[in-house]
Amino acid sequence: MEDRTEIATLGEFGLIDHLTRNNEIRQASTILGIGDDAAVIDQFGKQTVITTDMLVENIHFDLMYTPLKHLGYKSVVVNLSDIYAMNATPTHITLSIALSNRVSLEALNDFYEGVYAACEKYNVDLIGGDTTTSQKGFIISITAIGEANIDKIVKRSGAKSGDLLCVSGFLGGAFLGLTLLEREKKIYLENPGIQPDLENEDYIVGRVLKPEARKDIVEFFEHAGILPTSMIDVSDGLSSEILHICKQSMVGCKLYEEKIPIHDQAKQFAYKLEIDPTACALSGGEDYELLFTIHQSDHEKIVLNEQISVIGYMTDFEEAPHIVTKGGNTHKLTAQGWNPFQEQ
Amino acid sequence: MEDRTEIATLGEFGLIDHLTRNNEIRQASTILGIGDDAAVIDQFGKQTVITTDMLVENIHFDLMYTPLKHLGYKSVVVNLSDIYAMNATPTHITLSIALSNRVSLEALNDFYEGVYAACEKYNVDLIGGDTTTSQKGFIISITAIGEANIDKIVKRSGAKSGDLLCVSGFLGGAFLGLTLLEREKKIYLENPGIQPDLENEDYIVGRVLKPEARKDIVEFFEHAGILPTSMIDVSDGLSSEILHICKQSMVGCKLYEEKIPIHDQAKQFAYKLEIDPTACALSGGEDYELLFTIHQSDHEKIVLNEQISVIGYMTDFEEAPHIVTKGGNTHKLTAQGWNPFQEQ
Repeated sequence: MEDRTEIATLGEFGLIDHLTRNNEIRQASTILGIGDDAAVIDQFGKQTVITTDMLVENIHFDLMYTPLKHLGYKSVVVNLSDIYAMNATPTHITLSIALSNRVSLEALNDFYEGVYAACEKYNVDLIGGDTTTSQKGFIISITAIGEANIDKIVKRSGAKSGDLLCVSGFLGGAFLGLTLLEREKKIYLENPGIQPDLENEDYIVGRVLKPEARKDIVEFFEHAGILPTSMIDVSDGLSSEILHICKQSMVGCKLYEEKIPIHDQAKQFAYKLEIDPTACALSGGEDYELLFTIHQSDHEKIVLNEQISVIGYMTDFEEAPHIVTKGGNTHKLTAQGWNPFQEQ
Repeated sequence: MEDRTEIATLGEFGLIDHLTRNNEIRQASTILGIGDDAAVIDQFGKQTVITTDMLVENIHFDLMYTPLKHLGYKSVVVNLSDIYAMNATPTHITLSIALSNRVSLEALNDFYEGVYAACEKYNVDLIGGDTTTSQKGFIISITAIGEANIDKIVKRSGAKSGDLLCVSGFLGGAFLGLTLLEREKKIYLENPGIQPDLENEDYIVGRVLKPEARKDIVEFFEHAGILPTSMIDVSDGLSSEILHICKQSMVGCKLYEEKIPIHDQAKQFAYKLEIDPTACALSGGEDYELLFTIHQSDHEKIVLNEQISVIGYMTDFEEAPHIVTKGGNTHKLTAQGWNPFQEQ
């Protein structure tokens, strides 16, 4: 009998490690390959940054509550977020889609309207793609390309003990928005007469349906003369991203629960559901904020920027990543990010 | 009632035209956007060439007769073929896959073995990707990146009246190989006791399962000092590709049936099936040969290359694309290429 190993046993990152263990680099221009937010190619003095994402219906999005225009917008934004996470500027995208004959041309027009709106907002060009049929569902694959000066690229691996750990914006909102939409979908399916109740929840719903990439933060770094020592975008939850930085930078960290920025509307909804807002920030995904580390000496440059919170500091590798709770207890930080290969 | 237009009514190219009609170019570096084999970005004196393809199980491949290693190899090759069709050299790829839990880790290892084999053969680096789950089937999205000197890029749009129309290798074999595999699959499904009969058909089976990109032809151009006036890779059948060149170059052409290169083994199998080998070359797809036009004055440079056949010449736009049959009749050339949105 042939051996059969279930992919779910490895988890997403384990799977990637496994599949890329024999990957060889042959091109002298390949500065950075698999394992960061984006790859980096050296091209004649500037560096080209490349990232790609695949979005699958009913795995990554649900067309029951996701307007196609928003989906088009978000598909672009999540890729651009990876380019910004390298401290680079996105310039071009390619877009491939596979769709079943359930999707009409009018629906597809809406999707492209969202794609073009994101291209306009972020000043990127759609330069290629592929359009084909799927057996089931709508599948989107986007590759984003950006550029940066050689000395401006920020990887996950540059954090040093003593650096400040910072994050942009607010966390946990997208997860709570998704929870709300899933709840309303369930209610609707059980009783189609009831209209969804999204009143006063526009903030969290907006966070999941129409996220933005933090172009403004990367521009701020440029103007303020800050070069983060490491950076990653928050797509899988704060814990998971901190652990990536710690692992790839070979450092530990101390994260302070009370410093984690959570929007009031997100907090209120979490309390309504009787779940812990901190847990939503740590383990919920899709916030698309930037998590980064800076030299302590850069602290004064960020202190007046209300979009940036200092949430902790990096420690020696031996000290491992920890969270200090509001009650003053210290726990080891564990990732409870999303494993797309586990049954939901 | 909302309007609903079925996507199949537009066809693949009609759909692309429709969806990209409002596409705006903002970046000064975008030299060539949608509508050729690949896009071109100007980067500091050299040009970066980018193309992307999506392959969907049971639309583009059938795992019943496609070994996963071959599938991995072919997925890379079909993208590299688009880079060579710009007269460029591929350097990097990204690879995203979505798979159902039907696929085991061992099967995925085979797929990646094929991907790495292609990377090695064509000297390209795998630099990024995404790995996720699908609702149904195996979906592959690859983006290939290449480079070329500014004055070496060859588009579809440069053919002039009087240019010679040339093609590399042999045509029609992949279609015949696919026909054979489909036939043997049907026989097997009806009677699982019967072993597939592929004897003596290794050439056509190889053409569909393990195609190669014509790196050698692009290298030959370089060494022989030839710059084709237009070029495209033959993925949808010869007719369809000739019509692309004619439309985008605003020329007509005269194609000679007797000059179309068809391998003996392909001819024999076509006769066995009582189908016309020429029809297989004109309308069958997936040959991944290069179709190109050259100045008449370059004729002597190619005449000794047995891998290149002159199959006709370009005419004025008003004369439209035509085929001259072996019997001496002249017919208008029509595309009967593959429409992925039509029910099969």
